[in-house]
Amino acid sequence: MFETAEIGSQLSDDAFKQLMPGLREGLLTAQYEMLNRARTEVVIILAGVNGSGRSETAHAIGEWLDPRHIAVVPDLAPTDEERCRPPMWRYWRALPAKGRIGMFFSAWYGALLGRHKLPEDGALNGEFAAINRFEQMLVDEGALVVKFWFHLSQRDQKRRLESLAADRKTHWRVTKDDWAQLKHYDTVRALAERMVGGTSTAAAPWFVVESGDRNFREATVAETLLREFDRMVVQPPPTPTPVKTAVALKPRANGGQATILDTLDLTLALDKGAYEDALVTLQARLAKAVRRKRFQRHAAVAVFEGYDAAGKGGAIRRVTMALDPRRFAVVPVGAPNDEERGHPYLWRFWRHVPSSGRLTLFDRSWYGRVLVERVEGLCSEADWRRAYGEINAFEEELHDAGIAVVKFFLVVSPREQLRRFRERQTTGFKRYKITADDWRNRRRRPQYDSAIVEMIERCSTELAPWTLIEGDDKRHARIKILRTLVESIERRCR
Amino acid sequence: MFETAEIGSQLSDDAFKQLMPGLREGLLTAQYEMLNRARTEVVIILAGVNGSGRSETAHAIGEWLDPRHIAVVPDLAPTDEERCRPPMWRYWRALPAKGRIGMFFSAWYGALLGRHKLPEDGALNGEFAAINRFEQMLVDEGALVVKFWFHLSQRDQKRRLESLAADRKTHWRVTKDDWAQLKHYDTVRALAERMVGGTSTAAAPWFVVESGDRNFREATVAETLLREFDRMVVQPPPTPTPVKTAVALKPRANGGQATILDTLDLTLALDKGAYEDALVTLQARLAKAVRRKRFQRHAAVAVFEGYDAAGKGGAIRRVTMALDPRRFAVVPVGAPNDEERGHPYLWRFWRHVPSSGRLTLFDRSWYGRVLVERVEGLCSEADWRRAYGEINAFEEELHDAGIAVVKFFLVVSPREQLRRFRERQTTGFKRYKITADDWRNRRRRPQYDSAIVEMIERCSTELAPWTLIEGDDKRHARIKILRTLVESIERRCR
Repeated sequence: MFETAEIGSQLSDDAFKQLMPGLREGLLTAQYEMLNRARTEVVIILAGVNGSGRSETAHAIGEWLDPRHIAVVPDLAPTDEERCRPPMWRYWRALPAKGRIGMFFSAWYGALLGRHKLPEDGALNGEFAAINRFEQMLVDEGALVVKFWFHLSQRDQKRRLESLAADRKTHWRVTKDDWAQLKHYDTVRALAERMVGGTSTAAAPWFVVESGDRNFREATVAETLLREFDRMVVQPPPTPTPVKTAVALKPRANGGQATILDTLDLTLALDKGAYEDALVTLQARLAKAVRRKRFQRHAAVAVFEGYDAAGKGGAIRRVTMALDPRRFAVVPVGAPNDEERGHPYLWRFWRHVPSSGRLTLFDRSWYGRVLVERVEGLCSEADWRRAYGEINAFEEELHDAGIAVVKFFLVVSPREQLRRFRERQTTGFKRYKITADDWRNRRRRPQYDSAIVEMIERCSTELAPWTLIEGDDKRHARIKILRTLVESIERRCR
Repeated sequence: MFETAEIGSQLSDDAFKQLMPGLREGLLTAQYEMLNRARTEVVIILAGVNGSGRSETAHAIGEWLDPRHIAVVPDLAPTDEERCRPPMWRYWRALPAKGRIGMFFSAWYGALLGRHKLPEDGALNGEFAAINRFEQMLVDEGALVVKFWFHLSQRDQKRRLESLAADRKTHWRVTKDDWAQLKHYDTVRALAERMVGGTSTAAAPWFVVESGDRNFREATVAETLLREFDRMVVQPPPTPTPVKTAVALKPRANGGQATILDTLDLTLALDKGAYEDALVTLQARLAKAVRRKRFQRHAAVAVFEGYDAAGKGGAIRRVTMALDPRRFAVVPVGAPNDEERGHPYLWRFWRHVPSSGRLTLFDRSWYGRVLVERVEGLCSEADWRRAYGEINAFEEELHDAGIAVVKFFLVVSPREQLRRFRERQTTGFKRYKITADDWRNRRRRPQYDSAIVEMIERCSTELAPWTLIEGDDKRHARIKILRTLVESIERRCR
């Protein structure tokens, strides 16, 4: 496939000088259009064979555009904070905010390209799929993703490295790694061809740039960027979310059939003595599981969702009571702040992914998108529809990094909920817990129920299953949660 | 001073059981008051001799309060991202947002207490002063700082460690370090006494807690926290900023005398040939300075302030053009986002402090508080008045960490500014650069001038001097900036 980028394309200085002013003016204008509308973040990926001029091109882009709104993300070795989290964490934290441009060297292709041997056919398909899924998500969230592969024929790479090495001003830039790459040129080329083939999607295609001639390389990049920028600039704004979605949404037409929520036995209860025995035992077991040496190479994420007044707070406290305060964090999830709104939806949760050896409890979570945001019409239908897949992918990444993902949905009967609401209203220090929102959500229970059932259908996976908690009896609920959590952690650390 | 905490205070179980429910209800209510108003962040510091029960107390606090709004900051060894930045960076990044509680183990006292020998009298005064300044800033920014020193007599410490070590469930908690501390008890005690004496201020006093008896310790902490919380809760909201400050602010009454701004020779200019020679030379020198091995243990921060259309953007580009895009970052500073507004003023700049080996360019900066925020009445007079000292302290911390702090103020004459404004209005791709704000700021030039003069008077320090740039001729301005920057970096790396 790279034959088309080994034809010796060149651009004369004159032609280059004539071409560039118009391109640069167009680029700068488009950049400011995007900045002022703050609707698009731009992700530019610069990958290529060594010596193909990625740094020079990054430089040139920084001159064409206003560099104040560009952040460059080098392909350094991960820091220790990055090493003790899932591999994609470092890229999530580096994602540009809307309006800004992130220029990534190699980005999430670095690990793929770092191989010294060509893997078997198809061995990379899993990695390709994960990358494609991630980039599709970025684009769905409004990002523009432009990926450049800077290509040199073997002869050109050799020539280029030798000329850099011969010049007193640039010889420091040629490393052992570069010569090694030249030696294994065929492997690198084949690997890159597979990568470009496997990850060129409609959402985020690769642009292969013949890089032997500097003028030609830069003009190609400038033209490509301008075309892609303009594509975003002329795009109409997303249709505003219909505010009335919530009302339009009907409970599932299952003919009154029982859903999984109806199968719960809400009369399950535990007497005080049994509760206290189990509590002490399970808390000690949890404390031990988290202190174990093996857990220091793992981590855990616990998600707490449920109806209002179902007992999330109390259950969370029974977990945290068991633990050294330095080993866990609780993340209460409310409305996103404006920095969070300026990034893809999952960004605000990636921020809080625990480092190894730690447990993070999410009090409400990324499921907000398919629950409250869906029911209340706070996001578009397209947004919550694609969220199921994105969430499953996210949780799979956590799992693959050794993290136990444990999810609880606390169910409380309408009758018990009402009793708790009333109690909260009359008990002094519980009054803060009850708001007008709670009463409104209660009236929308059928709508919430159908969203919950769909969420469980789509996101209760083998790696990260949902556990439904019968919440009418708090003691039963807390013990079931503790037991499930500790067993999940022990299983993950086996 | 610790004699008062070695008197064997105890609290019976009965008394404890009677006392706690009221305290807990009060604490929870106060926490929610603070959370709902989101005006106060709470910093709790838990320090003390080993075995004094800091972890248990942190635990207890997590049970009394709603743990979802508490973040615990352990005293771990710094990560490599933290190690390559000024020492306080790790604490700034861990500061709680308004409404939330940060519970710090040892916090910024860790280094101080880690000593094995008692330093000479007065040797710690510099450290004490820096800490007091920092905590004063937190309190001025609306934080509540509660510092606990958990004290044990030597006999009690010995007894405590031995009992922990003897119990199968807790023996893992006693480390070599603990026994070592017991051996050097007198040193630790004397060091802590000095620390408590030197850093107990009206803004942030220490509370010394006799810790031999668990009931007494916990009750003391609960009572103290409740008293301090209540102090914040009853505090009236800060008086709203008078919106008309800007109009009321008069130019400095210096009898029409010349200010430092009048001493600039705005006719300074450079012809094209001399400019291009100097540009190439200085850019190469800068690139080299940043590439040097020695710079990898340093870093640089360059601040760009100036009148609108004075040429900041162009000057920044002439700097970045010289550099490998992986070695610098440009931070454009506009209005703070809501996450930034929820933290002390300087937090948003601390976020961007470069790690070693890197150069960060601030396009506008922390001086916004004493310039635009002062003149436009966006903060209270008390806020901008204390900002001078806080800024000097901030820059001193950067300097002390090996960072070159270089500050440019670009001056353009009213006449040349007008010419540039008009040019921007008529040139297509420059139109985005001119807004109604620019014209308004131009009319307020006398007010800005007096704020600028005061800023230079107060914040042009030996470690971080201001450089005034004559900006009517862009070539002169750019060369002067490049030269000053490269010389400053070379000097800092000597």
